[in-house]
Amino acid sequence: MSHSKDSSINVDALFLGPRSENRVFFKEMMAFAVGEHVHWRANYHPEDPALVTPQQQYQPDFRHTLYRTEDILRQLSARLKAQSVPFFSPRYLGHMNADTLMVSNLAYTMTAMYNPNNCAAEVSPVTTQLELEVGQQLAQMFGYSPEKAWGHLTSGGTVANYEGLWVARNLKTFPMAIAAHQATADLVADLSEQDLLNMAPDAVLDLISASQQRGEFEAVRDLSARGVGVMPGQLGKLLVPQSKHYSWQKAMDILGLGQQNIVPLPLDENYRTDIGALNQIVDEMMQAGTPILGVIAVVGTTEEGSVDPVDAVVALRERCQQQYGRSFYIHVDAAYAGYARSLFVGDDHQLLAYDDLIAHYRQQDTIPEGVQWPKPEVYSAFAALSKVDSITVDPHKVGYIPYAAGAIVMRDRRIVDLISYHAAYVFEGDRQGMALGSSIMEGSKAGATAAAVWAAHQLCPLSVNGYGEVIARGIVSADWLAKAIESAPVFNVDGRQFQLNLMMQPDFHMVNFTLKELGDDTLVGHNALNQKVYHYSSYLSGRPYDKSFLTSSTTLSRHEHGEAPAHFAAQMGFAASEWENTQEVYILRAAVMTHFLRDRARFEAYWQELLAIFERILQQIVEDEARLVRRNAGQN
Amino acid sequence: MSHSKDSSINVDALFLGPRSENRVFFKEMMAFAVGEHVHWRANYHPEDPALVTPQQQYQPDFRHTLYRTEDILRQLSARLKAQSVPFFSPRYLGHMNADTLMVSNLAYTMTAMYNPNNCAAEVSPVTTQLELEVGQQLAQMFGYSPEKAWGHLTSGGTVANYEGLWVARNLKTFPMAIAAHQATADLVADLSEQDLLNMAPDAVLDLISASQQRGEFEAVRDLSARGVGVMPGQLGKLLVPQSKHYSWQKAMDILGLGQQNIVPLPLDENYRTDIGALNQIVDEMMQAGTPILGVIAVVGTTEEGSVDPVDAVVALRERCQQQYGRSFYIHVDAAYAGYARSLFVGDDHQLLAYDDLIAHYRQQDTIPEGVQWPKPEVYSAFAALSKVDSITVDPHKVGYIPYAAGAIVMRDRRIVDLISYHAAYVFEGDRQGMALGSSIMEGSKAGATAAAVWAAHQLCPLSVNGYGEVIARGIVSADWLAKAIESAPVFNVDGRQFQLNLMMQPDFHMVNFTLKELGDDTLVGHNALNQKVYHYSSYLSGRPYDKSFLTSSTTLSRHEHGEAPAHFAAQMGFAASEWENTQEVYILRAAVMTHFLRDRARFEAYWQELLAIFERILQQIVEDEARLVRRNAGQN
Repeated sequence: MSHSKDSSINVDALFLGPRSENRVFFKEMMAFAVGEHVHWRANYHPEDPALVTPQQQYQPDFRHTLYRTEDILRQLSARLKAQSVPFFSPRYLGHMNADTLMVSNLAYTMTAMYNPNNCAAEVSPVTTQLELEVGQQLAQMFGYSPEKAWGHLTSGGTVANYEGLWVARNLKTFPMAIAAHQATADLVADLSEQDLLNMAPDAVLDLISASQQRGEFEAVRDLSARGVGVMPGQLGKLLVPQSKHYSWQKAMDILGLGQQNIVPLPLDENYRTDIGALNQIVDEMMQAGTPILGVIAVVGTTEEGSVDPVDAVVALRERCQQQYGRSFYIHVDAAYAGYARSLFVGDDHQLLAYDDLIAHYRQQDTIPEGVQWPKPEVYSAFAALSKVDSITVDPHKVGYIPYAAGAIVMRDRRIVDLISYHAAYVFEGDRQGMALGSSIMEGSKAGATAAAVWAAHQLCPLSVNGYGEVIARGIVSADWLAKAIESAPVFNVDGRQFQLNLMMQPDFHMVNFTLKELGDDTLVGHNALNQKVYHYSSYLSGRPYDKSFLTSSTTLSRHEHGEAPAHFAAQMGFAASEWENTQEVYILRAAVMTHFLRDRARFEAYWQELLAIFERILQQIVEDEARLVRRNAGQN
Repeated sequence: MSHSKDSSINVDALFLGPRSENRVFFKEMMAFAVGEHVHWRANYHPEDPALVTPQQQYQPDFRHTLYRTEDILRQLSARLKAQSVPFFSPRYLGHMNADTLMVSNLAYTMTAMYNPNNCAAEVSPVTTQLELEVGQQLAQMFGYSPEKAWGHLTSGGTVANYEGLWVARNLKTFPMAIAAHQATADLVADLSEQDLLNMAPDAVLDLISASQQRGEFEAVRDLSARGVGVMPGQLGKLLVPQSKHYSWQKAMDILGLGQQNIVPLPLDENYRTDIGALNQIVDEMMQAGTPILGVIAVVGTTEEGSVDPVDAVVALRERCQQQYGRSFYIHVDAAYAGYARSLFVGDDHQLLAYDDLIAHYRQQDTIPEGVQWPKPEVYSAFAALSKVDSITVDPHKVGYIPYAAGAIVMRDRRIVDLISYHAAYVFEGDRQGMALGSSIMEGSKAGATAAAVWAAHQLCPLSVNGYGEVIARGIVSADWLAKAIESAPVFNVDGRQFQLNLMMQPDFHMVNFTLKELGDDTLVGHNALNQKVYHYSSYLSGRPYDKSFLTSSTTLSRHEHGEAPAHFAAQMGFAASEWENTQEVYILRAAVMTHFLRDRARFEAYWQELLAIFERILQQIVEDEARLVRRNAGQN
């Protein structure tokens, strides 16, 4: 893999910057975008008579309407400036938000003026094509064959997850439909109902092809869930990590499968799916004859950034096929961390061997000595993505694209026929592949989103030298932040002592931590303290613009995380009884996506500032409590 | 209703214009938006050290990255200019596309720089609030009580329809769940299974409240479709107009209900639901004990703009409740024409009586003498929207908002509890009402869309004097176009004669028409001719920018429209046997949304130009055919 520094990306030049440092360029390009469009309109049939004249434009009601427009925009601007969250700043370390790529903002605005609708190429000749290109690029990043795979944009990861479950569900019912249809029943003549309900996805895809060759596909499809509805019990269980993002509960509801058919998978102490437990659950289900609708693995859990052992899930499926002759669908929810697979592939889109990868990181200073990333098991998980059936990935998270841009990628495009539709008026005379609305969950969609993602991929290819350089900055900064928290000094505030605690070494770039008061050995006290810290580090205590540091928070409960949070509680010195009584740990949660802290000296200064901010917040909390005590005393 | 011309909207001042006439204002406001944001960033903690310095910015790799950014934007601009469709021009009369409101484009761009995510108020303190305001405004436009109703934005009408069917489905299963749960069974003790499966929506909503008062709601909900999945047969049938937009077929698939549980409703000759047939079908189902999952009425069919008799559907439900003691859910798909309800309400949001409305139109010259709009039955349909359970409406259609902005409005917000969810990390410490992602189908969504719609509603209130003025322009122009087509002269081209035919007087602003060659009495020949006309009036024959007129087309088939197209075929003089043999009529389809033709002299000039364009296209078709004949002769 050759890599010339001349052609490499300067990451600081990709963003408008925390002080709008690239404002001259940004304004110039925005003016370019507007100018191009304005003249495109003006030059369309210039022979036409004038429709709006200067005389009309200077009439009072015309001016009045323009003044009102300006007034509304000023009001909006005032509201935005007063209450928006400064995601662009390194002072924001919370949700998966950071500055967005200038090229994407500009491409979006440029394209939105043409207002294409990617429902159909007829109303989006350019941007439908761009969306198909983007889908192929994402497929290639995950190691899929771009010729065989299929990918497209969605409004977000939630809808992408729905679509993944939709194809999995209809796929699951297809072999039964093949058996129920006289003209195709012979294709599965030797198979039992158990076999039909546990067929390998690839075998079902071959049944799609076989029924299409006989001209019977549509008749069979009418007998699948699409035509007759679902029989929730019959289709078996969806195995989802216990920390399941609520989009999976919504998905089971919406798709008519019922939330009770989710089997939660226990987590290990790193908040990854416990692979031993998974194997045991699957073996039990195989032996009991309970079909498995699918297994969901998460690459980048929403609350911890943890990476499930995808390789182990793939291996488990292979074992089941050999041992039991039964299989299941695998969908990976990589909404959060999916773009990080660019860090594992070269410019030729090929996965790099682990040692070559580390050598490349060191050579390019992508990830410096002393930062242990990726952990080998994280590498193996990302490597195995090429073997799963479908993947959710959000450009609007680690793609640094403005909202709303999700995506789904499927390994084998034949699967799309299970859900595709056609409507005469939109797709008339059109190439099948260009009629996105007929092959996806959504209908109308902004072509400008496709342009925004396409432009970003042009500028930052989905490889270690493109997006990899952008994403690595956050990963390195997160590692530094985690280590700094681990070795942070104790805060002394009015005679009370507080200690920072790192929850765990992150798999990706999310740093979870808490503050603990030394001497307070109650989890209730701990949780209350961190809620107060969050209060002062969020929009809850006033304008985000007035804050020096903004973060997010979450509650890790037994209900949603099993025994995983107990490890952290124990590590902080809480007695086991505290966890038993409280059953939840409230934590602060910082996705380190900013690219601006990836400079050792700058990070050190930032960290010192952060310590001072925490101290001020603790001071505030101590004073609030003292005030409350005085007030209560006064009342008594 | 008072109405001062001083404060009225000048519609020409709302849009950039077909020659970018308002470019000075648009550029100024775009610069304002960018400037405000740039300085917002720069003023956030100005004491921080510089992160990007001019020295760095002049480094070769920094410049190189900016040059590449510019290069990509130029490529994108070139592609957009070469292939985009000039929706902004009155020369485009096809899909529901026209110029978009400047204030919305500007508000979108302004807000997107702050990148809010309306999944949760924590990451969109401003725009979540704007979305809630927009939802209330839309609810009020439809005649719902804004205090009781619930509305929000979606990525489009398709997703809004899914959500409507989702609540309808879960509502349908709730009474059975009440009966199945020991602690609530007494609430429905006297009711049979038939009663439970045919309960009036309002009665189910009261059961929600009753179970909540007992603290049993969540347990009951777990026994509804949400928890246990669907039993497609048991829930009965969804009644959908035969011309059903394919989103309803997708919806039945996705929601696990099965497409075979759609009952198509015959259409009358105006492409509206045949209300006599609907009554008969419903009576048969009531007598047979088949539950009705819901009835879908369409306000603005996608292919004809026809308006279903919503009032008759509401009356039918009332009759069923009295006659049979059974009821059903009513959802209206007003994705297309929903915003036109603004034409029926005054500034006080109250529905105007028909005669008062017409008097107002004449007084304000909103709709002039000679244009018969609305037909009384269209008025009655729009009036009755206040009585249905939920409504889909698309701001990105007749709201003149850029893609993608759909919406759904529900009459009674209690229904949301049937589908709502909570995720700890997003909604922590937040007001319930502000956690949109927990109460809707989608998750992450662009806050900028809410700003775009909000700004439009601020500038053009949802009343006859706001949006009404904008929408009326297209309606009047469509009426003029329809009449011009009806009385158009015969085209004489190389000895062949062609006649324009109007399909019907439109309910809204969509004008469907065809060309027929006099002497060719075959529908096959007719359809082929109009396919050729479409070819030369679309992107199919080359760059849209090179076209003088652009339209859309569709096929009206017996399969999707029953006998409705036969009326048009007969009206054009085709024998009944032609329809029997061909079973489809290919038509040209022009949504007249442009506001620029609402001037009689301008329209006349446009129409003469259009006649000349049709003549040129026919000339081209005749020459193509002659060339083909010569070539075939030469080969023989």
